[in-house]
Amino acid sequence: MSLKLIENKRSFDGEQCKYTHYSEALQCDMTFSIYLPSNKENKEIPLIWWLSGLTCTDDNFSQKSGFQALASKYQVAVMIPDTSPRGEDVADDEAYDLGKGAGFYVNATQSPWAKNYNMYTYITDELSEIASTLVPNFSGKESIMGHSMGGHGALVIGMKNASRFKAISAFAPITNPIQVPWGIKAFSTYLGEDKATWKEWDASELIKETGMPPILISQGTADNFYPEQLEETTFLDNARENKQEVTYKKAEGYDHSYFFISTFLDEHFAFHLKNLK
Amino acid sequence: MSLKLIENKRSFDGEQCKYTHYSEALQCDMTFSIYLPSNKENKEIPLIWWLSGLTCTDDNFSQKSGFQALASKYQVAVMIPDTSPRGEDVADDEAYDLGKGAGFYVNATQSPWAKNYNMYTYITDELSEIASTLVPNFSGKESIMGHSMGGHGALVIGMKNASRFKAISAFAPITNPIQVPWGIKAFSTYLGEDKATWKEWDASELIKETGMPPILISQGTADNFYPEQLEETTFLDNARENKQEVTYKKAEGYDHSYFFISTFLDEHFAFHLKNLK
Repeated sequence: MSLKLIENKRSFDGEQCKYTHYSEALQCDMTFSIYLPSNKENKEIPLIWWLSGLTCTDDNFSQKSGFQALASKYQVAVMIPDTSPRGEDVADDEAYDLGKGAGFYVNATQSPWAKNYNMYTYITDELSEIASTLVPNFSGKESIMGHSMGGHGALVIGMKNASRFKAISAFAPITNPIQVPWGIKAFSTYLGEDKATWKEWDASELIKETGMPPILISQGTADNFYPEQLEETTFLDNARENKQEVTYKKAEGYDHSYFFISTFLDEHFAFHLKNLK
Repeated sequence: MSLKLIENKRSFDGEQCKYTHYSEALQCDMTFSIYLPSNKENKEIPLIWWLSGLTCTDDNFSQKSGFQALASKYQVAVMIPDTSPRGEDVADDEAYDLGKGAGFYVNATQSPWAKNYNMYTYITDELSEIASTLVPNFSGKESIMGHSMGGHGALVIGMKNASRFKAISAFAPITNPIQVPWGIKAFSTYLGEDKATWKEWDASELIKETGMPPILISQGTADNFYPEQLEETTFLDNARENKQEVTYKKAEGYDHSYFFISTFLDEHFAFHLKNLK
């Protein structure tokens, strides 16, 4: 195990940590951030996963959301992975919505992406094992949230592991990637042209199965990616038809930025913590 | 008046705005940010000034501190100037602690700096006039806070205008610039070698005068610039000797970053609001 602590900053009585390690799943060196609350009362600590959007690293949520105030208030650990494999040897694309910074939380099957672009396995297996060793007095209870591409990731990872994640929430998520430009571009590149293989990575398809965790979604009405990339009708229709517990909230006048995320983050944390008890 | 709104993002029910304008004091185009709370109850709104540290723009505090949650909670406007004049025609230096991003909130007297480096006049006159037109239902009550070089700026501007600013607070401020490397370098460059002229820009000198606003300072003990640049003994000795109301708090294990600032920002806002009533 090559896990190495490279930054440790005190924040709201807890520790905002940054680690590097070699990832077997991604075949490259990776960086992630994790917040560990002070846990002065020595309670069992749950873990929330945060998945970021296109172009982000582990820094965006760490530096721009103000989440540490909430993680400290609720005494929960927060794991923040990067959004793709990294490094000079990793396949890339000039576009911001493909390649590095745009892993889409899938396991790629197409050359040259399949070697490194296995963010699903990285997060659900490899990084999960690491997380469980880092959270002191870990309760074993986990939930997952994310933004935009990371909202898609949270929905897909949360629903593919419905018994593991106690709650899912998302800010401005891509709920139906197989029908929108971002998703079609990424899935055809990473997964190939056989659209049947895309469905297991589409939240609007996965929500058709039963027994999903409760889901909360916030969407700004002034988001410039809405509705083209973030259209929710199919997802909500399928959720309703299959009697899934989905709360979808429109936020009047809010855009796609971290100003939007930070405004509604307390509401999301409260939703998660209720389900992590 | 060339004032132009270039960004307006909804945040915690209020508006995080960014403006550009031509500054007469600085002889260049400038950008600043201002947060305006929702003021749903139509109350009179006070204004807090935030002055940033070396290398910063108006974006650092806006994006990394999480202050909007507090400005919304307390229903206060927050003005965030840039840290120096800007533009291709503005004198600069290769070092991070001189020239652009390092205005030190003084009025320079030396060539070639005197033409543009008049941050004191910019903030206390020009930007103040603009601020008063932007805050709806402005109570006319103001206070000032800042970080590092901006902590120095808040102390100096607040004390030089003691009847105007109702409270001053600072995170890891340079309290005695005429005695530390950052200050000596900047003051000898902007103000020249006659050290007598430096004293009017030194908080430890200004605190010797009477009738200063209440002051709150937070300082992390793991700050890598402490104590070399941020030594507080002279300031506190002079404050005590002159019976000024200064609260100086050490924060165990915190560094110089926004993780430190955001942790103690609620305490600082509460201190300001108590004095802005």
